[in-house]
Amino acid sequence: MTPFDLASLRPLFAPRSVAMIGASNDENKVGGRPLAFLKRAGFTGTIVAVHPAADTVQGLPAFRSLAAAGPVEHAIIALAAKDVLPALEDCAAQGVKAVQVFSSGFADAGRVAEQDALLRTARKAGMRMVGPNSLGLFNAVDGFFGTFATALDGAWPAARSDGNNIGLASQSGAFGSYCYALAQARGLGFSHMIATGNEADVDVAECIAYLAQDSATRVIVATFEGCRDGDRLIEALRQARDAGKPVLVMKAGASAAGAQAAATHTGSLAGNDAVFDGILRQYGAWRAQTFDGLIDVAYALCIDRKRDLGREDGRLAVLTTSGGVGVLVADAASAAGLQLPGLPAAAKAELSEWLPAATASNPLDTSTSVLGDMALVARAIGLMVDRVQPSTVLAFLAHVGRNPAHWAQLRGPLLALVAQRPGTRFVLSMLAPPSVRAELERHGVALFEAPERAITAFQAITRLGAAVSDVPPRQGGLVGQARPGRGTVLDEARSKAVLAAAGIAVPEERVAQSAAEALSIAVELGAARYALKIVSPDILHKTEAGGVALDVAAKDAADCWQEIVTTVRGKLPQARIDGVLVTPMLRSGIDAILSAQLDPVFGMVVMFGLGGTWVEVFKDVAFRAAPFDAAEARRMIEQTRVAGLLAGVRGSAAIPIEEVAAAIASFAKHVAARSGEIESIEVNPWRLHAGGCLALDAVVVLRNPEPVTGVNA
Amino acid sequence: MTPFDLASLRPLFAPRSVAMIGASNDENKVGGRPLAFLKRAGFTGTIVAVHPAADTVQGLPAFRSLAAAGPVEHAIIALAAKDVLPALEDCAAQGVKAVQVFSSGFADAGRVAEQDALLRTARKAGMRMVGPNSLGLFNAVDGFFGTFATALDGAWPAARSDGNNIGLASQSGAFGSYCYALAQARGLGFSHMIATGNEADVDVAECIAYLAQDSATRVIVATFEGCRDGDRLIEALRQARDAGKPVLVMKAGASAAGAQAAATHTGSLAGNDAVFDGILRQYGAWRAQTFDGLIDVAYALCIDRKRDLGREDGRLAVLTTSGGVGVLVADAASAAGLQLPGLPAAAKAELSEWLPAATASNPLDTSTSVLGDMALVARAIGLMVDRVQPSTVLAFLAHVGRNPAHWAQLRGPLLALVAQRPGTRFVLSMLAPPSVRAELERHGVALFEAPERAITAFQAITRLGAAVSDVPPRQGGLVGQARPGRGTVLDEARSKAVLAAAGIAVPEERVAQSAAEALSIAVELGAARYALKIVSPDILHKTEAGGVALDVAAKDAADCWQEIVTTVRGKLPQARIDGVLVTPMLRSGIDAILSAQLDPVFGMVVMFGLGGTWVEVFKDVAFRAAPFDAAEARRMIEQTRVAGLLAGVRGSAAIPIEEVAAAIASFAKHVAARSGEIESIEVNPWRLHAGGCLALDAVVVLRNPEPVTGVNA
Repeated sequence: MTPFDLASLRPLFAPRSVAMIGASNDENKVGGRPLAFLKRAGFTGTIVAVHPAADTVQGLPAFRSLAAAGPVEHAIIALAAKDVLPALEDCAAQGVKAVQVFSSGFADAGRVAEQDALLRTARKAGMRMVGPNSLGLFNAVDGFFGTFATALDGAWPAARSDGNNIGLASQSGAFGSYCYALAQARGLGFSHMIATGNEADVDVAECIAYLAQDSATRVIVATFEGCRDGDRLIEALRQARDAGKPVLVMKAGASAAGAQAAATHTGSLAGNDAVFDGILRQYGAWRAQTFDGLIDVAYALCIDRKRDLGREDGRLAVLTTSGGVGVLVADAASAAGLQLPGLPAAAKAELSEWLPAATASNPLDTSTSVLGDMALVARAIGLMVDRVQPSTVLAFLAHVGRNPAHWAQLRGPLLALVAQRPGTRFVLSMLAPPSVRAELERHGVALFEAPERAITAFQAITRLGAAVSDVPPRQGGLVGQARPGRGTVLDEARSKAVLAAAGIAVPEERVAQSAAEALSIAVELGAARYALKIVSPDILHKTEAGGVALDVAAKDAADCWQEIVTTVRGKLPQARIDGVLVTPMLRSGIDAILSAQLDPVFGMVVMFGLGGTWVEVFKDVAFRAAPFDAAEARRMIEQTRVAGLLAGVRGSAAIPIEEVAAAIASFAKHVAARSGEIESIEVNPWRLHAGGCLALDAVVVLRNPEPVTGVNA
Repeated sequence: MTPFDLASLRPLFAPRSVAMIGASNDENKVGGRPLAFLKRAGFTGTIVAVHPAADTVQGLPAFRSLAAAGPVEHAIIALAAKDVLPALEDCAAQGVKAVQVFSSGFADAGRVAEQDALLRTARKAGMRMVGPNSLGLFNAVDGFFGTFATALDGAWPAARSDGNNIGLASQSGAFGSYCYALAQARGLGFSHMIATGNEADVDVAECIAYLAQDSATRVIVATFEGCRDGDRLIEALRQARDAGKPVLVMKAGASAAGAQAAATHTGSLAGNDAVFDGILRQYGAWRAQTFDGLIDVAYALCIDRKRDLGREDGRLAVLTTSGGVGVLVADAASAAGLQLPGLPAAAKAELSEWLPAATASNPLDTSTSVLGDMALVARAIGLMVDRVQPSTVLAFLAHVGRNPAHWAQLRGPLLALVAQRPGTRFVLSMLAPPSVRAELERHGVALFEAPERAITAFQAITRLGAAVSDVPPRQGGLVGQARPGRGTVLDEARSKAVLAAAGIAVPEERVAQSAAEALSIAVELGAARYALKIVSPDILHKTEAGGVALDVAAKDAADCWQEIVTTVRGKLPQARIDGVLVTPMLRSGIDAILSAQLDPVFGMVVMFGLGGTWVEVFKDVAFRAAPFDAAEARRMIEQTRVAGLLAGVRGSAAIPIEEVAAAIASFAKHVAARSGEIESIEVNPWRLHAGGCLALDAVVVLRNPEPVTGVNA
């Protein structure tokens, strides 16, 4: 079932022997750095250098060829691009199991055929390959450093023996190693880091799957510029989820400006950023928007004693020594969708006995009344924990950490409280010297100078702990097949027939072939007013063609039919006209959009959001890969402001969110099952009103058979 | 004109002599800390202690009474609340010029009368007063430390002699001193810090005005929990603007949750956060959302060599050694509304000659091709500066700062470039040791580890440098007069008459007193379809009362009149009915909202945004204090997504933004002039369409004369 052969990655990440092909005596050269790092790390396996002339390189034995060096599991190639394929063939001949190609000048420079030749060679020999154009990898647990990352110069990684380490997989070496350097400066442990480069063979998805089963890795950090295979990414996220390893993702390419920059950078596909975002939400990964946000969440997870993220409920208790900061934190928490449950009356009464100047609520403002006895802060935190039962308690204590007298009063009672309440996450926000910070972190208490950054971290942890849908098997074999714009466009009447089959209700309406028929349909359907719309496979924008009339009284239907047909014939004499649709006008409700499209990376994806003409302005839409269940559909609705509209705007009747979610899930199931036939469906407006969900307009595009290519076809 | 007496603040901020009333030998007590700080600072003025028993306190001369101590300019009172008034009376008797009251237990504890008594005493004697409930102030230029801030324990302030200092004014001592500590840890210089506490006399606004004229202050940081006097704040912001001193504001109380916390905290008024936000934009201050954001902007401004913010145009040039980071930065810049102008073709050609592997665009990705010669980075930055002519150039250089060999190559050429281009702001994002950082900062180059934080700082600087409207005199005397909910509600027809007088167009429409008149009006106005709406001063929600019919054909107007009147009479037999409004239906255009209301803090404020039933869901509105000009109205529109809608949605005709801005400005002028009569006006929907801007519905509430109170009235 899994597309990954993780056992074959062992010689890549944890080899017993390594050859450096293109070895250099210069420790600052690409071919010299790995040797220097391996020596510094005290790598206990065999290290050999391959060099055209020298007998030793950096004091290590050097050989003219790999054949002369003897068998190794892992080889690193740092040669000019033109010399890479011969070296790779040598590796294949010598039984190497894993190769890293540092050299660039392949797909990154438009030389796709040359890269394909490398891949064929590796595959044929059963070798796994990283790169080309890779910065390499390190495994800090086993001391294997097959990388030339300059990030290591100022910041040597350490793997923590308790397994609270980050495993980092990045496409871009520069991007990934900056994440590494920032996290290392924050004092975080690392198990592995790998830069996958052009990803001819090993990609970030497979590395996520590898790190998910690695006992020295607590948190997986992955960075992307694009993603070429959605099925692999989804499967990797699923495996990490099953292993209880949170995945934090950073991806460049959100805006149009960003997408342009991405397109010029690698041989990868930036893809539709909104689709990528939806997939991460659907499969329970957290997407960080900033470097700070990424490192903060990784930090909180590595410090945290709470391992089971499946029990997060987003309940937060806040205590501060400053009312103003309490307000700020409450604001940030509210914006992040977290809950600050109130303090029960009995707890307020109790608190006011021994902390009379405090504002007894959540956030709890101790005011300056604790300055005389800081132990009261621990007592107040304990009261919040016991009476509010939060998932996380955040205490803002300003300068207490660097006031020795105050800290001496608080330290003991606080650490005792932390030890007694293992089910609660304790987070402090204050200024403190390194020694205070280190002791807190050893006890599982994370420390943030800026309190709002603690809120962002807790938001991420809550999302990581939230429910995700049971991941259904993805429809295989579709990826890469989508050829948008090649399909057959169905007219509105035929499109709506497709929708009806997918369980999406359409108005009671009929196509009139004549003016007289329009009148008889209008009378028969019994509505007060109608919309009449031209039916033609050649007309996509009906309004611009003069093919739409709104608010037509039943008795005027015949005249209106004639007017529409005359106008359209005048404007577009070539268009085939299949009649005029007569449909009752519907005034109430909310206009949503519901669509499906075959994505080249993620297969059939469904989009839902605010519809009508607002789509383009608000872009308030959510994507998911189909199929998914109603619970996932509900999360999708709640990601948009349609959820607020469903809850009821003055004057509009409410419609149950469950009903909309069920309709979306049914649609998703249907389009996933028919992904071989459907290129796209767009329902806009999808009218959600008290009576149900109706497709007022729709366009379905069917896939055409792909033209047959190739000499033998 | 100015409401501030800044000369009277000199003895407060820079006294020649100070008395500590309630002095303590314990350096950790509120009455002991200022003396310890003054000694540490080497304050050169006279220091005396007032103590009931001791002859010396902390080695300083102590006296039984202020009278015995001899004359001083400045007195600090740290006594129990009940003892404050007598002490203040002593100060008055001894000719003290400025008093700080550290003691709490006044308006902060609901004891408003006791606080008023302090104010009366101070005013009568011509004394300025800070507090009560204040943390005090320091003046690091003159070494005056009249504060008990524990923030100073771990972080002593230094004022830079070049004047690149922060002046900080905060209502809350805890909030302000945390801002101080974070900025001090960032290495920033401070001129003054003051916590105004309950603000019986001196408020943050007056401190902003004081700091605006202080030569040792470059950047003013102000924090608020609420604001009680809008006119004073606006005047202070105006003075800071005139003095070229950027004002950075942090305010707690954005969300409902936050507002609740604020309401329980101080005797201040949290006010409408959105109004406050609009005022800051209108008068050119920058509101930071986070501590990091605040400190980052202050840092960038203090490091910056460019003093004239009036020439900012938001043009950014970006160079990176990582394509992925380039994308990330481009995304962040785009979201922040900054421009990344393209690189001219000639510059691309030139660049590709000596940096062939680079992606020659903006952002410019040098790729790893500079690793051999880091001086190329400086050359590439120079090319960006000369060819893109940006306001700011941001270079992301990853680990270069802590690679001694790389930095040695880059340092000289980079600093030479910086010196040669004084009109350009240089910002680096990289990891670097303190010595590298310090040298860069000395040359005016700001350094951010996380590149997206540099973007936020540049966004703020751009906004601070953007145009603001010529600040008109505010209508005085209104503040505090608003009594929302007490006014007289006008019916739709009368409301629209008020609007027409304000220059806001209303539809051609008339009130029909009978069914027959409804028909004749409909025929006369000549439209195809009409809306009919009940006219009654007793009915605010016409639709719910059955008082609205839409889409009525002219010939059906009489029947419809009768139906509406019958329905309303049945539902609301008590309501006075003044007829039925007959108004042509208008289908095209965008529904905005335009309103005015008398704000208790800021006087007459105008709101504009997305209208219809969407107001409540999207809350996409902007506030400004009236009056203002069309340029300000345009910035208001651009703050909302209505700007995007005006630019044209498919199928809707565009309407010039200038036309809408002119109408808003005219409305603002009118309501400001009539602020004595108008309590509120709401126009919703305000239909913006190709033919103009029409008030489709409106409610005006007139102010009633305030009930006369007082014994002599």
